[in-house]
Amino acid sequence: MTTPDTQSPRRRVGFVLFPGFEVLDVYGPLEVFGMLSEHFEIVMLAERPGSVVSFQGPSTVVDHTFADPPHLDVILVPGGRGTRAEVTNQAILDFLRTASEAAELTTSVCTGAGLLAAAGLLDGRRATSNKRAWQWVTTQGSDVTWIPQARWVDDGNVITSGGVSAGIDMALAIVERLLGQETAQRVADACEYDRHTDAGWDPFAAKNGLV
Amino acid sequence: MTTPDTQSPRRRVGFVLFPGFEVLDVYGPLEVFGMLSEHFEIVMLAERPGSVVSFQGPSTVVDHTFADPPHLDVILVPGGRGTRAEVTNQAILDFLRTASEAAELTTSVCTGAGLLAAAGLLDGRRATSNKRAWQWVTTQGSDVTWIPQARWVDDGNVITSGGVSAGIDMALAIVERLLGQETAQRVADACEYDRHTDAGWDPFAAKNGLV
Repeated sequence: MTTPDTQSPRRRVGFVLFPGFEVLDVYGPLEVFGMLSEHFEIVMLAERPGSVVSFQGPSTVVDHTFADPPHLDVILVPGGRGTRAEVTNQAILDFLRTASEAAELTTSVCTGAGLLAAAGLLDGRRATSNKRAWQWVTTQGSDVTWIPQARWVDDGNVITSGGVSAGIDMALAIVERLLGQETAQRVADACEYDRHTDAGWDPFAAKNGLV
Repeated sequence: MTTPDTQSPRRRVGFVLFPGFEVLDVYGPLEVFGMLSEHFEIVMLAERPGSVVSFQGPSTVVDHTFADPPHLDVILVPGGRGTRAEVTNQAILDFLRTASEAAELTTSVCTGAGLLAAAGLLDGRRATSNKRAWQWVTTQGSDVTWIPQARWVDDGNVITSGGVSAGIDMALAIVERLLGQETAQRVADACEYDRHTDAGWDPFAAKNGLV
């Protein structure tokens, strides 16, 4: 366990957007970090300036392009249908490799793990992903120990979560690691969110025939 | 109980944005409806064209202004810090009154109930809201039976939910009413979401000294 460092400087959390991202993969964790604006600054990144359309329809405005990003302390890669095209997009894979090397934490929600795997960032590591899209995701990285039954998997400076809403629990676990249990629970209570604190909690692996 | 009408035409769900809206209040329910694109069309509305900045920082692109809205079957009003200014903004209150009259369902998440109350749309009705902001919200409507302990309150064609993440359970309850229990559970499973199906479940009322 890392000792919570409540005196640490404000960390910058970068959300990596692409066409067809899943909205809750982004905005669940964003709500968690956004409740702690004294500790986290949020930035939205994408390949091109302007806005990025989600799989659900609405578009989010881009703060920085991959070509001109600020330093990121925490990187969050969402999933969504759009990942299927992005795993062969060298612009996003190159950006992820470069940004991850300088970051304190690289994280993904849902099929975002497929993008991290395609970038080689999960090689030699333990990881999880969405349970319905398991076959597709796991073919993106062969040198990965894929854990089917997990709400999230903490592999040190790389943390991956299960599908969609699992990102909220992962974000709260990150807050707990960085700022302590009390702060994480305070955020969950402010969101009126019934938090899962056990990284191994996952009924969805069985529902999808993975265990 | 309404009999689920799975043969119904596609419904249009309008999310009402304003500066300082809470991101998960919008994108939690939006994920739920967005998973059923064959049944729901999603549109984002605001007073002005362009984009609207959330309380957490990121901005969402606007599809329609209050002056030129399409017909809405379901209206969703989020909460967030921005509600404090909006309760005296006649443009949004007038829009809510007009749109609600033509809609099948008018709903709110979190302090969005304060906006519905200020518009007079909760007069003579039962409603709930965020538990931390209870004092402020309940002063927005005196002819309202405010229910402090509730995940959501179903008052027929007006449904209000508790704070932030409660909107996800409310959206799933709406899907259950309109399309049946099986569809609602399928969406929750696809989101890997541990759904609360009891509208009375609410430990946050007690945590905030309301019961």
